[in-house]
Amino acid sequence: MDQFMQVAYQEALKGLREGGIPIGSVLVIDGQIIGRGHNQRVQQGSAILHAEMAAFEDAGRLKPQEYQRAVLYTTLSPCDMCSGATLLYKIPHVVIGENITFTGNEDALRSRGVRVEVLNEPACIRMMENFICENPALWYEDIGEDEKVPGC
Amino acid sequence: MDQFMQVAYQEALKGLREGGIPIGSVLVIDGQIIGRGHNQRVQQGSAILHAEMAAFEDAGRLKPQEYQRAVLYTTLSPCDMCSGATLLYKIPHVVIGENITFTGNEDALRSRGVRVEVLNEPACIRMMENFICENPALWYEDIGEDEKVPGC
Repeated sequence: MDQFMQVAYQEALKGLREGGIPIGSVLVIDGQIIGRGHNQRVQQGSAILHAEMAAFEDAGRLKPQEYQRAVLYTTLSPCDMCSGATLLYKIPHVVIGENITFTGNEDALRSRGVRVEVLNEPACIRMMENFICENPALWYEDIGEDEKVPGC
Repeated sequence: MDQFMQVAYQEALKGLREGGIPIGSVLVIDGQIIGRGHNQRVQQGSAILHAEMAAFEDAGRLKPQEYQRAVLYTTLSPCDMCSGATLLYKIPHVVIGENITFTGNEDALRSRGVRVEVLNEPACIRMMENFICENPALWYEDIGEDEKVPGC
């Protein structure tokens, strides 16, 4: 697995061990990790700290020019909110662990010129498949959708 | 001024008094305020707590069905990130104090069926005009844009 996706995946595992939703993210500038985080819906009762948002927040206040040479790694395809944050800060490159269990607003990213790479790592897919199967209410709350019966 | 926009405006003024960026927001469900907040870039060194995000966070974890009958009030047109959060949670109605000093991604909201009302309240416009004029670096950092010389 790509070295930065590996760190994002470790963040997701940390979230899982905490009883949270296993999605992790890392923000990289010039080959250095400057922000990392995982979904905090359960841990902090947060409606906005998806993994990508947690990574942006961990990085702190950056200059526009810094964001404009960053790469965002996330274990799962970024939702409307996280894609929106990526567009706000003009992040030029997003690497996605998988978009099989959930496909976010990749179209919006691509339409605004963001380079979107989808790895579809088996470990990322398996982690989310298992989580959604076991925690459908929590998962659908996280993506703002009415609960469905997962196909598992 | 609309009663809920008045509360959002008071949140913005609170932010201004704290030395922050004067943008406020309120989330309303069934005629009750369930979340409120103002931009926290300066106060908390936050890259993600725009006013609307602060209001979502203040509201805490809600059910998808609750968001789906909410109204989001914001003193300024919502950026890509805040529009994205609005779309994630399927908020059906957004009321905007003004979109003269900054126009966010209202097109994305409308294209996904969100009812967008723009009030263009003189008090909201004046507050942002003055702020941008006096704090261009901070303002452009908040919207992820290279600093420009404001026309004032």
